Amino acid sequence: MQRLLNRPQDYVDEMLDGIYLAHPTQVKFINEDKRCLVSSKTKEGKVGIITGGGSGHLPLFLGYVGEGLLDGCCIGGVFQSPSSMQILDVTKEVNRGAGVLYLYGNYGGDIMNFDMAKDMAEMESIEVRQVVAGDDVASSPKGSENKRRGVAGIFYAFKIAGAAAESMLPLAEVERLAQKASDHVRSMGVALTPCTIPELGKANFSISDGEMDLGMGIHGEPGIKVDKLKTADEIVDEILSHILPDLPYSKGDEVSVLVNGLGATPKEELYIVFRRVANVLAEKGISLYNSYVGEFATSMDMAGMSISLLKLDSELKNYLSMPCSTPFFLQNQI
Amino acid sequence: MQRLLNRPQDYVDEMLDGIYLAHPTQVKFINEDKRCLVSSKTKEGKVGIITGGGSGHLPLFLGYVGEGLLDGCCIGGVFQSPSSMQILDVTKEVNRGAGVLYLYGNYGGDIMNFDMAKDMAEMESIEVRQVVAGDDVASSPKGSENKRRGVAGIFYAFKIAGAAAESMLPLAEVERLAQKASDHVRSMGVALTPCTIPELGKANFSISDGEMDLGMGIHGEPGIKVDKLKTADEIVDEILSHILPDLPYSKGDEVSVLVNGLGATPKEELYIVFRRVANVLAEKGISLYNSYVGEFATSMDMAGMSISLLKLDSELKNYLSMPCSTPFFLQNQI
Repeated sequence: MQRLLNRPQDYVDEMLDGIYLAHPTQVKFINEDKRCLVSSKTKEGKVGIITGGGSGHLPLFLGYVGEGLLDGCCIGGVFQSPSSMQILDVTKEVNRGAGVLYLYGNYGGDIMNFDMAKDMAEMESIEVRQVVAGDDVASSPKGSENKRRGVAGIFYAFKIAGAAAESMLPLAEVERLAQKASDHVRSMGVALTPCTIPELGKANFSISDGEMDLGMGIHGEPGIKVDKLKTADEIVDEILSHILPDLPYSKGDEVSVLVNGLGATPKEELYIVFRRVANVLAEKGISLYNSYVGEFATSMDMAGMSISLLKLDSELKNYLSMPCSTPFFLQNQI
Repeated sequence: MQRLLNRPQDYVDEMLDGIYLAHPTQVKFINEDKRCLVSSKTKEGKVGIITGGGSGHLPLFLGYVGEGLLDGCCIGGVFQSPSSMQILDVTKEVNRGAGVLYLYGNYGGDIMNFDMAKDMAEMESIEVRQVVAGDDVASSPKGSENKRRGVAGIFYAFKIAGAAAESMLPLAEVERLAQKASDHVRSMGVALTPCTIPELGKANFSISDGEMDLGMGIHGEPGIKVDKLKTADEIVDEILSHILPDLPYSKGDEVSVLVNGLGATPKEELYIVFRRVANVLAEKGISLYNSYVGEFATSMDMAGMSISLLKLDSELKNYLSMPCSTPFFLQNQI
């Protein structure tokens, strides 16, 4: 295991120590629990937005807490859900009288804990709405979208909902826009290597050299096909052949593209991938608006990438183009 | 080779295609040569700053071209210098009547080509100054600093010089500040895995499992010691034991810290590393100002990281805190 760490059981907490030390003016924790992270910037009367999930996916989840994005985040151990009590505590902290939106990915443990926290928050008279993002077309067929896993495309829901809340829209509107963004995104990825769980000291699944797992999830959930490793262009074409008909995305549409590195794949390769995505979309008459290339949702040392497409309309474009600032993600007004 | 690419010989040009497609409003190329990249934003009368070097280090070098940073960049093949003619062409393009600064790392091929370009530019009556950055304390002992390789610490010279030029300082001042920033930075890294050269299909050096190469360069230049892989804290302590006495950095100093991932190392681990750096500096009475944690100078799929420290004074702090905006690096005014 060629990793930089101390005791594996301290992996998450030492990572968190580093984050608070590196970004002392932007984020802080509450209740002496480092896994309950909130933004240092608050705005009275603004809808609070909370996300959460397992560790091991930086900048997901806590990297999106900050101005113009989210207000708080709870994280669990590597690939483990945070607890409902942690979520409740962060809910109380970020509620500024306008209610709180829970916005997270479609995983059983997270749903259970966010649901429980919502019930408890409502007993304390805090209005809570939930949007559960599921954008991975490889995880369940069209027609059963509600079974799809949330992967990197959740970035778009964060961005749109965060800008909506920052614009002081009411909870029902922030919820509607988060759901709309989520409904307008499709993603799919490919894994070239497994990732190492620090406490195990090894991967909990394997990918042979010279092979790839098309559609694999960010926790190593099996994809739709194990195949020999193809060229970047062939892989992009195959992924787009699943994504494009699913929404569908058609001639005349305008999209934002996110090419997301899973952790160990160099930026050079992400741009090689982006090039092909852009060329295929151009051939199909689909135009590009403000693309993103980099690491947005990772699996530690997993090699591979995912492609997400957000289908835009003027409303989504407006919120996508607004500025935001977190320790991990900065955007100027477009 | 678990990499995402098409024909290895197209690696650099397809990567460049992706960059121009993803960031069409921020960067462009000249002379139909994609390896000659310039900023789309120009400012009459501003000193132009150019960097360059081999490919395979994103966001180095071309990722630092943009507002408040650099004006142009020439890149060669993977780990290869650009040509003097390419540098000359970019020099002519970014010269706005105030002269041009060449700011790049201390590697033989780059020095030869930038030197030749400088001579040719001067024959065309363009004033050119050069600052060659060498921050890697592992590459040559104290007393022969001019033999040191330039690694991630060059980011600080880019940032300071870029802000100085953006402030419309004259060439001699931009040169002085670039040199001052470079003189105030020390870096050292550790490699945990080699990197794969796409055209070779394999690494051109090796690191055994369970071992590390302390002080290895970003092209795989041998470091100061091959050792068994230690804990993150032990590695940080050893690196700082080389960096701190070298400048030296002492009690009462204020520094900016850059923890740079070499490509395949997860952000989680970079924060574990940052935590230890911050704690050691605090123990020594050295205070922190605006730290950076992420990928700033990589070697494709190499695992490992480097630590850079910039010793600040009020002048450097002023330019470090100014805003800048490139496709790869965005900073708001601090």
